[in-house]
Amino acid sequence: MKLQIAMDVADNSRIMEIARQISDIIDIFEVGTPVIMKEGMVPVKMLKEAYPHMTVLADSKIVDGGAIECKDICESGADIVTVLALSDNATIKEVVKVAHQYGRKVLADLICVTDIPKRSKELAAMDVDYIGVHTGVDMQKEGRTPLSDLRELTKAVDNTRTAVAGGVNLGTLPDYVAEKPEIIIAGSALYNAENVREAVLQMKEVMNA
Amino acid sequence: MKLQIAMDVADNSRIMEIARQISDIIDIFEVGTPVIMKEGMVPVKMLKEAYPHMTVLADSKIVDGGAIECKDICESGADIVTVLALSDNATIKEVVKVAHQYGRKVLADLICVTDIPKRSKELAAMDVDYIGVHTGVDMQKEGRTPLSDLRELTKAVDNTRTAVAGGVNLGTLPDYVAEKPEIIIAGSALYNAENVREAVLQMKEVMNA
Repeated sequence: MKLQIAMDVADNSRIMEIARQISDIIDIFEVGTPVIMKEGMVPVKMLKEAYPHMTVLADSKIVDGGAIECKDICESGADIVTVLALSDNATIKEVVKVAHQYGRKVLADLICVTDIPKRSKELAAMDVDYIGVHTGVDMQKEGRTPLSDLRELTKAVDNTRTAVAGGVNLGTLPDYVAEKPEIIIAGSALYNAENVREAVLQMKEVMNA
Repeated sequence: MKLQIAMDVADNSRIMEIARQISDIIDIFEVGTPVIMKEGMVPVKMLKEAYPHMTVLADSKIVDGGAIECKDICESGADIVTVLALSDNATIKEVVKVAHQYGRKVLADLICVTDIPKRSKELAAMDVDYIGVHTGVDMQKEGRTPLSDLRELTKAVDNTRTAVAGGVNLGTLPDYVAEKPEIIIAGSALYNAENVREAVLQMKEVMNA
């Protein structure tokens, strides 16, 4: 089980400062969509230059132009790229093909997908490496969580492919750990912690208990 | 009827060179998603600094974090931001609210939406300014075009809100013009033309005939 920090703050210096604190203990370091929207692939390149052995995920949420976008992201050094599960199969296949040519992995984000069992099986059949349920921040404000979605997902595909994101914190973590996903993604619960390194270690302790 | 050039090449200097040629005649200059993925909001800022009166669209394809992402994009100077029509209504509403606070406009991209009449009516009710049908590049490779989608769209909502994108060129342009959309978007047919200014003028002539 891997812990992924989702860095959704759009500030390269803060990202580098947090990476400095946790690069040796975090399993996956995510450069979030708001950061990419503002800074492009600059923070991805900076992170891979400073910490070449740290796994960096670019939360690109590709939905079209699979080949060109995936190529640019892989050439920036990202180890994992993301594609929207809602995308056309033609796009998913292009992203998987290009990422695998570069020896990288693909995470498909199920955000806004209604039939999770059906779509996740299709994604697995297209050789998508990871499939993640995701309750977006705008949906979290309405009180929604990704727990029931995760249960649907782990029933539909092999656990080694599964990921979960959407407001996970130390308090709710045990509920998610119980479902044994491959990747648990936490954002503000980690990067807004007073001591980010301590927060990561505490979550990892719960995950490895 | 407005003509929008979709700049999907990820090279700031080429973007500025093309803007120099057409800033006085193009209705909307789009910074495409592959460019944003690579360069962030840098080209949007460069274009608005050089050509403050040119309407610039950032093809951000927001799908979550509506408020934060829209705010960053508006502060970069973009006149129009895009949101995926597939997004949760909570996200659409946040994007519309923030964009309108800044006096900017929102285009919702119907890419991968199956029930175009239903969703476009919902988007219009949420006060989305423009609603665009869009056959993605990966789908175009399979021979698909956005023409029948555009016909569905113009039947469902007022033409002043409609846009169309997906492989439009000078040869197919009259078919789209006949449907009277508010915005016609062309990409490589314009930016790959030997004389980009001439290509824009030719398309505008067909649109205004």
